[in-house]
Amino acid sequence: MTLPVPFEPIREELRDRDACAFVHVGREDDPTLRYLGRTGRVDGELAVVVTAESAMLLAADAPAAARETFPGDSVLPAGAGIPTGERVATVLDDLGLEGTVLAPRTVPHDAALYLENSGHDVASTAVVGDARVAKTDAERLRQSTVQSAACAGMRRAAAVLDSAHVHEGRLDWEDAPLTALRLRREVDAAIAAEGMVPGFTAIGVGDEPATPRSETAIEPGQTVVVDLAPQGPDGYHGRLVRTFVVDGDGGWTRRAQLAAEGALDAAIPELSPGGADAVQTELDAEVTAYGFEPAPDSGGYGVGLERHERPALDAGELPVGAVLALDVRVSDPAEGTVRLADLVAVTEDGGELLGAFPRSLVP
Amino acid sequence: MTLPVPFEPIREELRDRDACAFVHVGREDDPTLRYLGRTGRVDGELAVVVTAESAMLLAADAPAAARETFPGDSVLPAGAGIPTGERVATVLDDLGLEGTVLAPRTVPHDAALYLENSGHDVASTAVVGDARVAKTDAERLRQSTVQSAACAGMRRAAAVLDSAHVHEGRLDWEDAPLTALRLRREVDAAIAAEGMVPGFTAIGVGDEPATPRSETAIEPGQTVVVDLAPQGPDGYHGRLVRTFVVDGDGGWTRRAQLAAEGALDAAIPELSPGGADAVQTELDAEVTAYGFEPAPDSGGYGVGLERHERPALDAGELPVGAVLALDVRVSDPAEGTVRLADLVAVTEDGGELLGAFPRSLVP
Repeated sequence: MTLPVPFEPIREELRDRDACAFVHVGREDDPTLRYLGRTGRVDGELAVVVTAESAMLLAADAPAAARETFPGDSVLPAGAGIPTGERVATVLDDLGLEGTVLAPRTVPHDAALYLENSGHDVASTAVVGDARVAKTDAERLRQSTVQSAACAGMRRAAAVLDSAHVHEGRLDWEDAPLTALRLRREVDAAIAAEGMVPGFTAIGVGDEPATPRSETAIEPGQTVVVDLAPQGPDGYHGRLVRTFVVDGDGGWTRRAQLAAEGALDAAIPELSPGGADAVQTELDAEVTAYGFEPAPDSGGYGVGLERHERPALDAGELPVGAVLALDVRVSDPAEGTVRLADLVAVTEDGGELLGAFPRSLVP
Repeated sequence: MTLPVPFEPIREELRDRDACAFVHVGREDDPTLRYLGRTGRVDGELAVVVTAESAMLLAADAPAAARETFPGDSVLPAGAGIPTGERVATVLDDLGLEGTVLAPRTVPHDAALYLENSGHDVASTAVVGDARVAKTDAERLRQSTVQSAACAGMRRAAAVLDSAHVHEGRLDWEDAPLTALRLRREVDAAIAAEGMVPGFTAIGVGDEPATPRSETAIEPGQTVVVDLAPQGPDGYHGRLVRTFVVDGDGGWTRRAQLAAEGALDAAIPELSPGGADAVQTELDAEVTAYGFEPAPDSGGYGVGLERHERPALDAGELPVGAVLALDVRVSDPAEGTVRLADLVAVTEDGGELLGAFPRSLVP
């Protein structure tokens, strides 16, 4: 049930850099801490300590809840009222560990100072960020499950838009104007009914950017961008973006949809361990071939415990196992916005789509 | 629409400590950054810089989205690829600011080092944590709205349990065994339909602790603890806990419910700006008067951008405006658990209940 953490790369880094321990401190909504601690609903500040011998989680508030999911060796109740960094220093002292401590660059400043004041050098390591780029099979499976809930949410959006009808130049649904807010609530309820957290649903009507705060009334013929980034109980995200038009007259939106769909179809096979920039090039070339200019933020980004994380498409290699959203955007102030995004895993043989949802403009 | 931030206490602290700027760096799910930046769906690392003259937000990924909600003076696109701390140092340098920089104790270590390397002393300040304890009227109103969604979720839980029926010694609902997981999904869909994020719904059946991961099948006569901590689009939480029993035989659960209800009724009027420990004493005394021993974690805690935050009930003063959950727990391994929690604001005249939901055991 619980997700393992590959502690071995951290131990290898400890050996390579002759360090006595790896330490991170944070709340569980810090993605680095969440990755290492695998907790789900533990309040307060936590610490993860990895040594050559042991992986420990320090939890002040709910050590029993943390024990349910922490895949390391032990969960220690952190001393109530004692700063977490000081408590970590005591744990290292009790274990007789001296010398350099490695920590992510985002370790809280006070925790680093407590460690320094107790005689350790604190040095920065990127080992956790590096390890998070390539997802394990278990992580990818969680992202697939979340993506299924994104598809359920999108089905609900399409169903609501499909059952809306034109009334005095606007769209009505269930006897009231259909707004971005009402549409978002329906979508979020569908995602929640699948057991996932609908924390990041954004709707964009016409040329407005997709935002969770939109309350815009939807008119016939307008582009409606539905941007879903639900989160699973383990913290992993999905990502699915579709664009719908109710009662559209074709023309620009239809051509923009073909361009975006063509770009995805061309780029997904490129998601093998070559250069990431080849994927961006393929996306942009296809959009351009249809006579459009890709929006500046049309492209792709890694998806995992963060909605945007490594790898970026602008440089570097794509490791096998990386999970990305390819997110193609075509925009025209006079016509609206067409966006399509799919979630894709990098394999030796090209991209593997996680979850499938039709790309049609017609809901 | 957007929530203001009282920057004045920060400026007062700058004057008192002869510092040139306040700085914090983090992602928006860091509650300190969320409080200062008021963003809702901005990816990547952000920085808030407050000087005597100006409050600025540095956002690399989506400055336009950040501008929608940041209540300060300006949103600067952070330099892509440049570490946030280095970018902050450049901003201070461009403004000609020298000397001490104040930062929360959790500022990322690398950001503090960039500031130190550019000639600043970095000193810790608790001013933001202190300011967050007493909620503004606008913040309390947001928490009331979130709490209404918690009530909607609880109504859904009661309705599902009420329409379940006993079948071969277990509870069935809609032709299948009613499990904690099915119940949670129904509750979460109801919260999402209210426009709130159901990220932290936990169910506890019998004597198991309430957890979002429970898949336990519910039996007649068992206590069912429904623990809701939904989050609004601004990040503020509600908190509501109720306990239900389907087809119970009264006895222990009924007496435990009376004790918990009596404790809440006795403690809520005590939530005036006196000592917080008086509230804890009142809660415990009432539970004891009914012949029960309060569970070790029976008590109260501040609720805001974090599910548990200041003030604690174990010491200190309760400032007017603080919002707390009073969370009373009575547990018996043989009988189950009864928990009741309400969300309450501290006023000059005692506690003011935010949202009201019946406390009956009968769903």
